[in-house]
Amino acid sequence: MIGLNIQNVSKEKIGATHGVEIDALFGEYRGQIADIVTRLYAEKDTEGGWKKWLNLGYDETLAKEILAYAKTVESHYEDLVILGIGGSSLGGYALLKALLHPYWNNLSREKRGGFPRFHFIENVDADQINGLLDILEPKTTLVNVITKSGTTAETMSAFMILKEWLEKSLTQAELKKRLVLTTDKKKGLLRQIANEGGYTTFEVPDDVGGRFSIFSAVGLLPAALCGVDIGELQRGIKELDAVLKNSELKDNPAAQNAVLQIYYYKQQKPISVFMPYSYRLAAASDWYVQLWAESLGKKKDLDGKVVHEGPTPVRAVGVTDQHSQVQLFNEGPNDKIFTFIEVTQPDQDVTIPQQFNHIEDLQYLNGQPISRLMGAEFESTRASITSNQRPNVTLTLKKVDAFYFAQLLYFLEVQTAIAGALLNIDPFDQPGVELAKVYTHALMGKKGYEHLVDEARGVKTPATVQ
Amino acid sequence: MIGLNIQNVSKEKIGATHGVEIDALFGEYRGQIADIVTRLYAEKDTEGGWKKWLNLGYDETLAKEILAYAKTVESHYEDLVILGIGGSSLGGYALLKALLHPYWNNLSREKRGGFPRFHFIENVDADQINGLLDILEPKTTLVNVITKSGTTAETMSAFMILKEWLEKSLTQAELKKRLVLTTDKKKGLLRQIANEGGYTTFEVPDDVGGRFSIFSAVGLLPAALCGVDIGELQRGIKELDAVLKNSELKDNPAAQNAVLQIYYYKQQKPISVFMPYSYRLAAASDWYVQLWAESLGKKKDLDGKVVHEGPTPVRAVGVTDQHSQVQLFNEGPNDKIFTFIEVTQPDQDVTIPQQFNHIEDLQYLNGQPISRLMGAEFESTRASITSNQRPNVTLTLKKVDAFYFAQLLYFLEVQTAIAGALLNIDPFDQPGVELAKVYTHALMGKKGYEHLVDEARGVKTPATVQ
Repeated sequence: MIGLNIQNVSKEKIGATHGVEIDALFGEYRGQIADIVTRLYAEKDTEGGWKKWLNLGYDETLAKEILAYAKTVESHYEDLVILGIGGSSLGGYALLKALLHPYWNNLSREKRGGFPRFHFIENVDADQINGLLDILEPKTTLVNVITKSGTTAETMSAFMILKEWLEKSLTQAELKKRLVLTTDKKKGLLRQIANEGGYTTFEVPDDVGGRFSIFSAVGLLPAALCGVDIGELQRGIKELDAVLKNSELKDNPAAQNAVLQIYYYKQQKPISVFMPYSYRLAAASDWYVQLWAESLGKKKDLDGKVVHEGPTPVRAVGVTDQHSQVQLFNEGPNDKIFTFIEVTQPDQDVTIPQQFNHIEDLQYLNGQPISRLMGAEFESTRASITSNQRPNVTLTLKKVDAFYFAQLLYFLEVQTAIAGALLNIDPFDQPGVELAKVYTHALMGKKGYEHLVDEARGVKTPATVQ
Repeated sequence: MIGLNIQNVSKEKIGATHGVEIDALFGEYRGQIADIVTRLYAEKDTEGGWKKWLNLGYDETLAKEILAYAKTVESHYEDLVILGIGGSSLGGYALLKALLHPYWNNLSREKRGGFPRFHFIENVDADQINGLLDILEPKTTLVNVITKSGTTAETMSAFMILKEWLEKSLTQAELKKRLVLTTDKKKGLLRQIANEGGYTTFEVPDDVGGRFSIFSAVGLLPAALCGVDIGELQRGIKELDAVLKNSELKDNPAAQNAVLQIYYYKQQKPISVFMPYSYRLAAASDWYVQLWAESLGKKKDLDGKVVHEGPTPVRAVGVTDQHSQVQLFNEGPNDKIFTFIEVTQPDQDVTIPQQFNHIEDLQYLNGQPISRLMGAEFESTRASITSNQRPNVTLTLKKVDAFYFAQLLYFLEVQTAIAGALLNIDPFDQPGVELAKVYTHALMGKKGYEHLVDEARGVKTPATVQ
């Protein structure tokens, strides 16, 4: 199972100014955590409680339906295009980047086992969309559109462009086979479009927010379409969930990390660095950034008080960022808490060959597995961060496979929910992006929004500025 | 030319608490900036002054040599592999991602105009390296190794692996053609290897630090090998440089932005968000993160005093991150200054077709160019950030082409050098990553480092922790 090491927040390791007495700190939070975890799991079936993501690891029916559909399209397509943004794309992308071959889209069809290349469109960039159409063939492209409401301007624009592009070359019967829509079960514009066109659909479940939806059809369908073992994802979650539902702080690592994150946030460390030592987990960092930023960054608390809370997540990748951000991490302000992700075993190691035997300064590399260098660089960087008295924790995965990858993400989901409760904010809403959406409607000339055009252009100062 | 809009830091736009009187603020900094800019440009030829990057845009000899070499290998290779890390890779990668087709590595050889696909190895991840070897053929692969000293463990390990892999299939004469090394002119291990093997080399110039090296052979060679017009890069720099060498603050936009960044950093806004509204500029964000973090994150100032300075850069991409980080940006703590990058013109626009005419809520998208949606979302997000009283500036590029892209990066380089001077730190060194390198040597069993093994493992507490 995924492991958490928190020793580098202790006074023994990072000194009295920045370190804590772990037992004493956990003693203070113990009762509050017991309440929070008990409440969290008690509400996992509650309508309108936004906790139903806690059930996704157990949904065998969902997994079966997805696999059945994936079977029917297997080997039919060269390319899978996923249209979605934010919670509708970051999870699926992180999943495929972590679990498929690192150069998947450059592998031959044969080496991909007949599964398609994958492409996410999560922007409205003309150059990107034109570029993608350059490399696709309508006859061998499958498009998965993901939006719960069907009102997401970015996703729907891309859908309209892709649908027209498909229709130029395909009959309506062929088109039907090339679209699969992931949306609300009953309502919304994309549901209406699916019903009218008779397209295949999967569900964005109720009471699962976008950024907690990776283990619904939102993430599982792209994964299954590319051959990822989604059963293993679910098994990983179930093994971990047995531990995370524990209301006793000393036995619940996700709760422990939530406590440490929020404690340090309140101790003038507003920045939370997430640094996996794995090339394939780089995209998981972007997923974490959304999860942490959008869940915890809130103007008002649960009592309606204006608080402007929220730690700022920062992504980094080991070892690469040792030559980029680590200078700041070691020497800059002590205003960060670090989460390292360690992977103890590569899929297949490489030995550094004896190439320059006559150069003494390179001999220490000769004949060593490159995983040892990765491990040594990780340990060294962590030791230097620690010796500079910066609090840090480590999550350890045995491998980057479906089982452990699911555990990593599920761990972070539970940690985020608990952190939200500790901050007394709602981690499941996102009121702060509504204003810009309304402004966009005004600037695009949507009916009924005319009075907001000047405000959206910044010509008129809105009432909030004094 | 690249434009800077700073109106959204004014009291009129963001209120008295977070806004400034721009004229008054610039009046305070005017004399200091005059000194800094005069000194910066006075030292652009000084040995040991680390300011020689200011000359790279004018180096026509360099451009000619690179183009001559590129001509000799043109159409010979299917794949270009670049081995480097940090300053040796981030610039070249940002350049190729911005200026080549967004799906370059999936284009046919013909659509690539005979230029190679490109792959950067900037990690020591066994799974990534094995993965890359899966898609390459030794006979059609060109390898560019970039390290000034030749001691960089990550780059040299990858080089040893790639060289052995090439040697298995090629004669020594063939191997010679497939390696091009970018390193120190005279000294270092890679120079020694190049001399012994008779390999083609290009120079990492003296007194140009890694993170300021993009417009040396470090970035220009990969660019030219993939067909980027490096003359246009230089022309862009020269046009802008005529403005940036201006010592009068009101006429120097890079100095203005440096002043605002450092002013807000000192006003409890330790986080600097960099948010291009362009898919192709996402990698430029990573380059900026290194530039800002490694240049300004310093323990000691120029007088040797312990200061632990340094703003924390955060990358974001518009519009994508509107569905991720913008919730926090709008509602979280007002602890950030934002730099938006606006691109006013796509290479080729796309019109959103009239697809769902009967659905009223989608009609506002019908028939609109998608660039208008991008523009509206940018304006709207900036307006919402502004109405939430968060200081923000905008850099405007007409297009993402070689000319404007070079201006963007050069602008940021000059801004960073000036910001370092304002903080009274050395923006050109990186002492804070040395400890981890030493620890890595210890853990890899390098001779003479045995006494540091326990410290590197975190078993023994180093002397710095009290």
